This record gives sequence, structure tokens and C-alpha cells, in this order.
Amino acid sequence: MHTETFELRTGSERFTDVTARVSEVVTRAGGRDGLCSVFLPHATAGVALFETGAGSEADLDATIDRLLPRDDRWRHAHGSPGHGADHVLPAWMAPSLTVPVVDGALALGTWQSIVVVDPNVDNPVRTVRVSLLT
Amino acid sequence: MHTETFELRTGSERFTDVTARVSEVVTRAGGRDGLCSVFLPHATAGVALFETGAGSEADLDATIDRLLPRDDRWRHAHGSPGHGADHVLPAWMAPSLTVPVVDGALALGTWQSIVVVDPNVDNPVRTVRVSLLT
Amino acid sequence: MHTETFELRTGSERFTDVTARVSEVVTRAGGRDGLCSVFLPHATAGVALFETGAGSEADLDATIDRLLPRDDRWRHAHGSPGHGADHVLPAWMAPSLTVPVVDGALALGTWQSIVVVDPNVDNPVRTVRVSLLT
Repeated sequence: MHTETFELRTGSERFTDVTARVSEVVTRAGGRDGLCSVFLPHATAGVALFETGAGSEADLDATIDRLLPRDDRWRHAHGSPGHGADHVLPAWMAPSLTVPVVDGALALGTWQSIVVVDPNVDNPVRTVRVSLLT
Repeated sequence: MHTETFELRTGSERFTDVTARVSEVVTRAGGRDGLCSVFLPHATAGVALFETGAGSEADLDATIDRLLPRDDRWRHAHGSPGHGADHVLPAWMAPSLTVPVVDGALALGTWQSIVVVDPNVDNPVRTVRVSLLT
Repeated sequence: MHTETFELRTGSERFTDVTARVSEVVTRAGGRDGLCSVFLPHATAGVALFETGAGSEADLDATIDRLLPRDDRWRHAHGSPGHGADHVLPAWMAPSLTVPVVDGALALGTWQSIVVVDPNVDNPVRTVRVSLLT
């Protein structure tokens, strides 16, 4: 298995498209076919596959705030107001995604991007681990 | 890794049980133990493991419409009314599922079926990629 | 691939931290790098990665009851009242999780625990399958 990590400066952005960076790791790994794991070693972020650049970021943003409202309901209550919601997010949007690699490239569909979803503004630097098992 | 794709005619059905077709690929792959990836190269569908044939399709159908309502709230707004909801679905219900293969068969529980969840009526033909890494 | 199962007595607990038991399997498997699959062969449970011991169990508990209410709306209606909700849960919180193993250990973040989420009080004994492919 080839495995490496890279750092991501998410800042106040909730969505960071990491498709290109994951692809670079897959290319560097040099295998032909295998399974690529994208994993975040964090408790307040998830990985999602969706189409970026056509409005779905705003839609997902609103959906997260509606389903996991950033109010004072949360028992886990340190940090920014509503931060307890961030701790529940990864149970619904896992920080682990597996993508097949075929002929040395991620076998993504045309409209799929690998996106780090990080609602946590208190922690602007994130690590992404990419592993290719062949 | 053995990897292949098959096409699925989902039409207006939201739920398509693909357990048998995934099993056929696993059998064809001929390995004994490994990890099987079921992956949809689509931006408006997910893969779920649940019990089919006992009412949960109707329940999940209603849950999807309640949590991701097909109204005019969505920024991503081409296609059928409410289609923006379909683009948010895979962030919550990933188009990627990993199932262990033991002694050459999917190690599913008695009541688990692998189901393609496709709320998108605009795109009735879908591709499923099944990969077995041993 | 090294694969084995263990039993879990979840009883009336919704959340059971299985990080230590999964780690034991990984140690026993003896590989250095690979992908570890945690898989539940059950139709009414999921696996989640989140921080335990700081209030998020109570928060996730409330979120599950709010998003998937245990009332009489469910078509799948055997067992305890609201049990149909349990059958929908794994579509949103998959019973399958992949964690990279690096240098023989789960590459989890400091605050991540592997948690079996089992809202189903009717079935107090659960099986967990852990597989390490190297």
C-alpha cells in the first residue's frame, strides 16, 4: 500500500475540492488497479462525493444547517456557538471514502468531485490521508 | 483487482436491489477473501445496505423526501422540479460501499441487500462498478 | 486478508465504542500497512467515527430521534414501537467503515473512536466483522 498525507488550509470554507490532490497521490503511487481510501483523521469533518461548481455547495451548506442546526441544543459545547453540531456531522457524513482506481486513475464519474466538508471554523488546518492498496 | 461495470435501468424506480448482480461479479472474480467495492460514478445517487421487501423502501422514500424536500429551495436548479435535492443526496448517502468477501462470497447479513438509491428520474440508466481486491 | 468476527452485547445501549477491539484484530493480523474494514452484518445498525466521552453520544442520540422519529409513521412495523426507524438508519449511517492501517496500527485521529450505533433494542447481541487487507 502506498499511503501519504497532505495538509489542507480550509480556513472558514466548509467545502474544499481535493480531487486533484488525491489524483496526484494516485499517480505518484504508480499502481494500475486498486482501491483508494481518502481518510480524514478528524472528529469534525466528513468526505463527500458530489458535483461542485453548480450550486450544490450552497445547497449542502443550507442542508447541514437545517439538519444539524448550530444553536445551543448540543451537549458537546466547547468552542464556537453550535460547534456540537460539527461533532455529530461525521456520524452522518463519514470521514472515510473509498474510490476504485482503474488503469492508474480514480474511476470517478464526470460530475463527481471528492470534497472535504469541514464545518468547524475553529480548526483551519486539516490533514487528509490518501492510501492506495493494489 | 478484478473490476467490471454493469448497466442498470432504474427508470422511475428509486430503489434497485443489486445484490445478485454484485454477487455474480464476485463469483466471476474467483477470489476467496477480499474487499468488494460497489461504486456509482454518478452525482445523484447513493448505495445503501438495508432490508428490502418489508416496507423499508417506502419508509426510506418518505425519509428522503422529508429530509431533502423536492421543492424550489435548491440553488442547483436544472432538470425536474426539486432535482437539486438529488445532487445533495450523495453527500449523505455515499455512492461508495465496501463489503468484505469471505470464502468467495459477500459476507452480508441475512437481512442486508445492496441497493442503488437513485432519486433522479431524469437519468434512467446507471452504471455500477464492482471491484474485488484480494 | 485477515478476517474475523467478534460478538458485542449492545443491550439497550445505542453506542458501543469498539476501537480497542478492532485494534486488537489489527494487531493480531500482523500486517504493516493496509485497509481495515469494519462491517456489521445487520440491517438495523451503523458504524460511525466520532469523539466519545464529551457529550456527542447524547447529541447523536437526540439527532437520530429527531431525523428518524420513533413514532408510528413507519411501514416496516414489527417489533418495538418505532422500530421501522431502525431499518432506515443504515441507509444514512452505513454499517461499513474503512480505516487505513499504517505501521500496523489504525491511522485514526486523536479524537476519533469507532462506534457501533445500534438503536435496535430488540436485538441485544451483535456481530462485528473486522477484515484487514494488506
